[in-house]
Amino acid sequence: MLNTSQINARLGSKMLFGGDYNPEQWSEDVWQQDVELMKEAGVNLVSVAIFGWARLEPVEGQYDFDWLDRVLDLLHANGISVNLATATASPPAWMALNHPETLPIDRSGVQYGFGSRQQYSPSSPIYREKAALLVRKMAERYKDHPALVMWHINNEYGCHIQECYAPHTAEAFRHWLEQKYQTIPELNRVWGTAFWSQGYQNWAEVQPPRHMPAFYNPTHWLDWRRFSSDMIQECLEMEVQILREITPDVPLNTNFLGFSKAVDQRSFAQQEDLVSIDIYPDPATQESKIDAALQSDWARSLKDGQPWIVMEQAPNQVQWRPINRLKKPGQMRLLSYSMVARGAKGILYFQWRQSISGSEKYHSGMVPHTGTSSRTWQEIRALGNELKALPELSFTPDAKVALILDWDAWQALEQESHPHTGLSLMEQIGHFYQVLWKQNILVDFVTSDHDLSGYQLVLAPSLPILSETAAANLKTYVQNGGHLVMSCFSGLADPNDHIYSETFNGSYNPLLIDMLGILIREFDPQSSGTVLELSNGWQAVQWADVLELQGATALASFTSDHFAGAPAITENQYGKGKAYHLGTQLQLSSLEAFLKHTLQNAGVQSPLEVPEGIEVVAWKDGTTFLINHTSQEHTVLLPAPMQNLLQSAATQTAQQELKLAPMDVAVLQPQTQLEAILQ
Amino acid sequence: MLNTSQINARLGSKMLFGGDYNPEQWSEDVWQQDVELMKEAGVNLVSVAIFGWARLEPVEGQYDFDWLDRVLDLLHANGISVNLATATASPPAWMALNHPETLPIDRSGVQYGFGSRQQYSPSSPIYREKAALLVRKMAERYKDHPALVMWHINNEYGCHIQECYAPHTAEAFRHWLEQKYQTIPELNRVWGTAFWSQGYQNWAEVQPPRHMPAFYNPTHWLDWRRFSSDMIQECLEMEVQILREITPDVPLNTNFLGFSKAVDQRSFAQQEDLVSIDIYPDPATQESKIDAALQSDWARSLKDGQPWIVMEQAPNQVQWRPINRLKKPGQMRLLSYSMVARGAKGILYFQWRQSISGSEKYHSGMVPHTGTSSRTWQEIRALGNELKALPELSFTPDAKVALILDWDAWQALEQESHPHTGLSLMEQIGHFYQVLWKQNILVDFVTSDHDLSGYQLVLAPSLPILSETAAANLKTYVQNGGHLVMSCFSGLADPNDHIYSETFNGSYNPLLIDMLGILIREFDPQSSGTVLELSNGWQAVQWADVLELQGATALASFTSDHFAGAPAITENQYGKGKAYHLGTQLQLSSLEAFLKHTLQNAGVQSPLEVPEGIEVVAWKDGTTFLINHTSQEHTVLLPAPMQNLLQSAATQTAQQELKLAPMDVAVLQPQTQLEAILQ
Amino acid sequence: MLNTSQINARLGSKMLFGGDYNPEQWSEDVWQQDVELMKEAGVNLVSVAIFGWARLEPVEGQYDFDWLDRVLDLLHANGISVNLATATASPPAWMALNHPETLPIDRSGVQYGFGSRQQYSPSSPIYREKAALLVRKMAERYKDHPALVMWHINNEYGCHIQECYAPHTAEAFRHWLEQKYQTIPELNRVWGTAFWSQGYQNWAEVQPPRHMPAFYNPTHWLDWRRFSSDMIQECLEMEVQILREITPDVPLNTNFLGFSKAVDQRSFAQQEDLVSIDIYPDPATQESKIDAALQSDWARSLKDGQPWIVMEQAPNQVQWRPINRLKKPGQMRLLSYSMVARGAKGILYFQWRQSISGSEKYHSGMVPHTGTSSRTWQEIRALGNELKALPELSFTPDAKVALILDWDAWQALEQESHPHTGLSLMEQIGHFYQVLWKQNILVDFVTSDHDLSGYQLVLAPSLPILSETAAANLKTYVQNGGHLVMSCFSGLADPNDHIYSETFNGSYNPLLIDMLGILIREFDPQSSGTVLELSNGWQAVQWADVLELQGATALASFTSDHFAGAPAITENQYGKGKAYHLGTQLQLSSLEAFLKHTLQNAGVQSPLEVPEGIEVVAWKDGTTFLINHTSQEHTVLLPAPMQNLLQSAATQTAQQELKLAPMDVAVLQPQTQLEAILQ
Repeated sequence: MLNTSQINARLGSKMLFGGDYNPEQWSEDVWQQDVELMKEAGVNLVSVAIFGWARLEPVEGQYDFDWLDRVLDLLHANGISVNLATATASPPAWMALNHPETLPIDRSGVQYGFGSRQQYSPSSPIYREKAALLVRKMAERYKDHPALVMWHINNEYGCHIQECYAPHTAEAFRHWLEQKYQTIPELNRVWGTAFWSQGYQNWAEVQPPRHMPAFYNPTHWLDWRRFSSDMIQECLEMEVQILREITPDVPLNTNFLGFSKAVDQRSFAQQEDLVSIDIYPDPATQESKIDAALQSDWARSLKDGQPWIVMEQAPNQVQWRPINRLKKPGQMRLLSYSMVARGAKGILYFQWRQSISGSEKYHSGMVPHTGTSSRTWQEIRALGNELKALPELSFTPDAKVALILDWDAWQALEQESHPHTGLSLMEQIGHFYQVLWKQNILVDFVTSDHDLSGYQLVLAPSLPILSETAAANLKTYVQNGGHLVMSCFSGLADPNDHIYSETFNGSYNPLLIDMLGILIREFDPQSSGTVLELSNGWQAVQWADVLELQGATALASFTSDHFAGAPAITENQYGKGKAYHLGTQLQLSSLEAFLKHTLQNAGVQSPLEVPEGIEVVAWKDGTTFLINHTSQEHTVLLPAPMQNLLQSAATQTAQQELKLAPMDVAVLQPQTQLEAILQ
Repeated sequence: MLNTSQINARLGSKMLFGGDYNPEQWSEDVWQQDVELMKEAGVNLVSVAIFGWARLEPVEGQYDFDWLDRVLDLLHANGISVNLATATASPPAWMALNHPETLPIDRSGVQYGFGSRQQYSPSSPIYREKAALLVRKMAERYKDHPALVMWHINNEYGCHIQECYAPHTAEAFRHWLEQKYQTIPELNRVWGTAFWSQGYQNWAEVQPPRHMPAFYNPTHWLDWRRFSSDMIQECLEMEVQILREITPDVPLNTNFLGFSKAVDQRSFAQQEDLVSIDIYPDPATQESKIDAALQSDWARSLKDGQPWIVMEQAPNQVQWRPINRLKKPGQMRLLSYSMVARGAKGILYFQWRQSISGSEKYHSGMVPHTGTSSRTWQEIRALGNELKALPELSFTPDAKVALILDWDAWQALEQESHPHTGLSLMEQIGHFYQVLWKQNILVDFVTSDHDLSGYQLVLAPSLPILSETAAANLKTYVQNGGHLVMSCFSGLADPNDHIYSETFNGSYNPLLIDMLGILIREFDPQSSGTVLELSNGWQAVQWADVLELQGATALASFTSDHFAGAPAITENQYGKGKAYHLGTQLQLSSLEAFLKHTLQNAGVQSPLEVPEGIEVVAWKDGTTFLINHTSQEHTVLLPAPMQNLLQSAATQTAQQELKLAPMDVAVLQPQTQLEAILQ
Repeated sequence: MLNTSQINARLGSKMLFGGDYNPEQWSEDVWQQDVELMKEAGVNLVSVAIFGWARLEPVEGQYDFDWLDRVLDLLHANGISVNLATATASPPAWMALNHPETLPIDRSGVQYGFGSRQQYSPSSPIYREKAALLVRKMAERYKDHPALVMWHINNEYGCHIQECYAPHTAEAFRHWLEQKYQTIPELNRVWGTAFWSQGYQNWAEVQPPRHMPAFYNPTHWLDWRRFSSDMIQECLEMEVQILREITPDVPLNTNFLGFSKAVDQRSFAQQEDLVSIDIYPDPATQESKIDAALQSDWARSLKDGQPWIVMEQAPNQVQWRPINRLKKPGQMRLLSYSMVARGAKGILYFQWRQSISGSEKYHSGMVPHTGTSSRTWQEIRALGNELKALPELSFTPDAKVALILDWDAWQALEQESHPHTGLSLMEQIGHFYQVLWKQNILVDFVTSDHDLSGYQLVLAPSLPILSETAAANLKTYVQNGGHLVMSCFSGLADPNDHIYSETFNGSYNPLLIDMLGILIREFDPQSSGTVLELSNGWQAVQWADVLELQGATALASFTSDHFAGAPAITENQYGKGKAYHLGTQLQLSSLEAFLKHTLQNAGVQSPLEVPEGIEVVAWKDGTTFLINHTSQEHTVLLPAPMQNLLQSAATQTAQQELKLAPMDVAVLQPQTQLEAILQ
């Protein structure tokens, strides 16, 4: 793994700006025009050859790198660096024809065909072999090319194909299980196969969870999800290993498909030097800015705060939703600054020049169909040059609040044959996040076994699976003064998804009874449409824990149904800290009231008082981003005179009262710091 | 078939209480604790080994009965009887591996995989052979075991797999057709293959109704449904034959999957000594008590009033709905007494001890995750002991009203390419039943060719298929003084689903014109959302017959559309009785008004005047159940002093005014009868 | 191709009346009754043997024509002509058994089974061979039969099977592509395979667009749709060739499945002598009369105004919708006259005698289940005799307005990965048509490269694909004085679905900038539920073009969102004509206001002022149809005295004030013309 200075040795320490560059779609006379326009827009990094395999190896075993040589030479000659793809994301047509067994098979046994993208089974030995050959060729050829500053491994792992039910995958699954469990009796114990006559006698009997008459065995399914993520991760590791061997100094990354459950991104991230991610909030919703912020915080958290890259965002609209709205004038810039504020040192787009054919021709490009007279191009060019003019930044966002997200627990939560199959982690996280965003509270994402001591408040949406170690970690955190919010349907089961009930302990959270000060006696999932009124006026949905207090106090109680009068939300002093339990799902405005209470108890404050709709992110070095998402001008009172980096040096005079134009941004730094930089 | 005294010789004549016991999920040290708790709860019957095949025959042809021996010995030693499963419900993993052709194939040609349950093709010769071997082994081994009081054949036939499209099933289908039709021309005639160029020339050309470009041939489809039910019934018969041979004295049953269209339960029931059924009303709805009552009446009706067993109900919540609500405190007891009132001599649960892993770990158990301190356990224990204290009961529920349900007609009704594909039998039955339940009118389910003379009122929801024999039966019933309500889309077609129109008779109910006193000239299915206003203020939906009176009188007419002024609901004196026709689907409150009219005409009365929400069932011997589903106390005036069997003998003094606590039950008997028993 | 007099030589010049006659469903004693009833109803043409293959060739290679001989002889003996089917629409069971590869395979790889209809792959060489043999046999046998007046080729091509994914189809697809593109590089260029690594190196690599991980390549998909239509058309051409060879004088037709996207009907129509079509408006909607009119105008337009035949309509209700309402008393007659008014010289039904079994037994028949006393029969008989009494008509409907519908553009419009996947051509056409229908403006359907000079107003709903030739054609039309309305998402792409943006022209309609006088800078699809208020009070949905005026004037502007103030609807003088652009989708009442404006500008007027709900169609010879769809009597003032052909000659006196009874029709002719005919 490269450290920051090694990474910066290649990538530089300034902001990166650019996008996916697919010159193979265009005749070479366009290329020259491309680099001219790139320079005009301040582009300093492009990703090349992501979908290049068919061009690089048009016939199995016959390579053609000449065109790519010319592309890299041209870019380098014009001072544009390259994030070079390993080109393994979409195998060519010959793969499907010569090796049809590489085509993935879905749950119903239907094999995918050639003609779109990502049509490979992650566990296919042939795919992996052919991909490895290509990666090695690429690395050998370009290891010394001066344009190469980073490797872009594959593309959006798991975007379309998360699982495969081919015979070779079944074989790999059995092998994976054998590694994990060693013996068949252990497999039987962990999967609980005594139920429904599922006991196995040998590995050959074990199959992927295909089309079935009734519910899956939940641990079978959970292991299948883990295995499926691991298969994709093995593809990543295979590429990493080759690249590390041949180009040990070149940082490498793979672009994640936004905030997604498809694969265990945190585990993947440990393989790469730098996190990069694709962020596509839906402009049709008011929450698109919050969604972009969430995904940015997620990206930053994957490698514990290290700067990261927005590998793809849309210059304007996308084409893959059923209805694809525009980004309004100025909106793309605001979202971009929100990403920078949350640690992005690179703002890149899909794609440089909008296609005129193919499946993404209605996905906007930096150079759109309507060319350089277009609003889109003008916004791109302006932002590129604005970012270029920024001084070197510290990238030290400062979060005091953390959200726990365990990928395993996420998988375990959203299963069939559960008390409430509509209980969604994404929705819970979205609600927590939205409330915090509106109060300008920055959030890190952590896992339940993460060192939490740096946070004043930790929020844990439903964690059905919780290991004993993690439970101990949470308790230590609270004991030492931390504030922890847990929510319903948490801590019931061990990592095998077995209910913790070896003894009759009488509660559904046996490991956390003392910390939370409650017994969870039963739970009563609520029909959709039912709104539960709580004693303090709050409203809740979806779930009602039947709680008994064992030391905790009730913040709110239910007022109806058979659980009328029973506690719904509790608070418990535990050691030096406090632990809260949400025995239901609060509606948004009630959740806001609840979180205000916990934030206050935990001593967490917004960095700045601002009108609604203004996003604030403050860094440890005092750098402060103010993003006005409203169409009104607003005046913000600063704690001390600060200077706005986005104004030309001439006009950068420190002010204590900042006028923020509609849909405008300020990047503020304390006066002294700025002076230091300017000198 | 065993008679009642033979059955009672094994099962005893007192109430049965218990549940599914799956000791294979637990280590043996738990077993001892289990039997202690069973005794504490008054458990006297458990079902064992339902999912035991993989444990009993872990490797093909290698049996291991030792563990089951120990289970049965232990139970017997503690006075607990066993309803022993034949264990054929879920074949082990080796079956899928060694004999993949036993795995069923769905309509699209996708084969089901191993890993949940019931993954066998009912017509598979290999499955049947292996199952027969197991049943024989079980019967031979346990035929003399003193714990064995009943056989539990397979489990919930048709729950997940109702059809299979494997080649061996196609072969079986052809064989079945050949048996039925003897010749190809007869098949062609009955299926009406002259249309759409479907004529066959030999049996080999005939296939199951797979994935098709357009609509199925309806008689092809109907025969396929009959065949598919028959294939499952053959599995039942295969087991019955072996068990009758080896253990002729042991009563046998198979537990039905509630009130369901999956298989022809009435036909199945004729194979078994005792009906047992699984009843899972949804606690999320107000109608759960009505649904449970309906299913109970259904179970009683399958063998014409003979006592039956609730083989499974949930001690609390289930896990297989998308949202699974609790049963409220006391609710399970009320539902259980409703079942007893409707003829259940056994109240059993799924399952004894709640699983900690597997697909049903969130399905409640009699011993739940939260153990003996839980509400669930306490309710179970209380009810078990209460039932144990009851004297022997007569089980003589007394229904004066019958609902006609022909499985064939149900299949024929709910087909594609029909006038109104939303016309649902379940919904019609539900509406009729609900109105009667609210008036505490007990209902039997009968078939159209059943002897109806014992009923004062018979209700026949849509019966598109009606044989000439059945039509004659209905007419005889009315002629002799019966009251019959028929509803739209009835009596159009013969059992081959051919329209009765060999001559131009001008009416869609040619066999019933004189009885109903109407011609059905046309019918006009109504768009969803359309509410038809009738002349007397009633409201109706879905359907409008275009009727002409031929002797009948109109109770209500349509008021709108092209059929304005035409009769909608008619009444006709026929012989000594009356026949009504519903030429539309009345909305619930209108149906209530209509049924009150017919009940009054037929002289049917509620057994007792009670406040709303109190369920009353009276038996021929005077035993009367009062179940207060409300959360208020109610006082009920009895016709004569009666004694409540649920009060301890000391306090059992006859009263004429009964105070019924909220969510409480009374089982009343006339004073004299009680005294006789007590002596 | 036969000319009109050749067609009339066989078919006669009077109205045709009849239906599908399937005597194979009935015993021969019914046949005699059939012809008697046919004569009673004025039937003079029946379609025979449409689903006759299984009866004509019950065993592969063994033919049985005797029954058909008898049918044709009987019909001829009774003066009834025959539209003889080639019987290839539904292959017999032996085809599926002996040649399973003829069964089509769907997108997921699932093969269709035998048992409904149309279960053949259009590209199957075996199907085609067997079908050709049958057609030849039929033609040879009946070429001289005096009953034969027309060939009915196959039936409703593409109704259920529009595509097939069998290996032989893949082979045919590759062949089709090779014919079209000649070289692989050209295929790659046109499909834009450089994107997503889809480049091909040889034909063997190309596959149909099967089940895929992500979006299809749009040009791949578009070619697949074209190919699939062509495969079906090849079946038609194969039959046409045989029939032309053997019976050059017999007109031939194939009945289209109503107005449908399934195949390119206009291209098919060029193969046949006469257009015939099946028209099944849904009686459940108020718009059924408008839908029937639209389909009639469509049918007339397929061969540029030539008289056509309603090959199928329902005498009353159908059975294939989920809910199938009746046609109200009189409704079928009104619809029939609307069809005649729009050029139908034949009114035929599916089917003669309602089946008593099979998939369509609930589809009404001319002789329904309820026989000759039924309303349906009486309406049929009355209409048949009324049409028989009509004098010879001119069939000269006179449309001044045209709607552009390019099948290619329709396919291209409704694709995945588009800006707004809900943008429906059917809906747009429906809205345009509905407004015009209500003003009694007759419409022709044309293609974008059609000679438009005969029309005063041309409406072009979204045409995403527009060839340069077509664009020039539109411009010429306007320049010469035409009025043209274009709508959003038009003219973006060339026939390969490539965006027209070789140069940065800054607009999404580069070929039409001067004609429309606008630049389309961006487009912003709108979320469903969003209603856009325009400056003049109009309302719009789905779409907002971001326009810049370049000479045009804005008729209405947007008032909200980022595009507030920008033009929404524009009008531009171009040469002697006017071109309008709808930059959004107007809601119905706003569209009505807009179209009134354009009609007025174009000088298009209703033929007659009539109350709402009265349909008027006027022919060039003055014949005028008035159809009263209301349940009120209305008085219509005529421009001059006219006589009503539907009144008996005795009462046919010219009137200038016409009283039209509720649900009644008048066929008026100027007095003089009528007198000429009568003499």
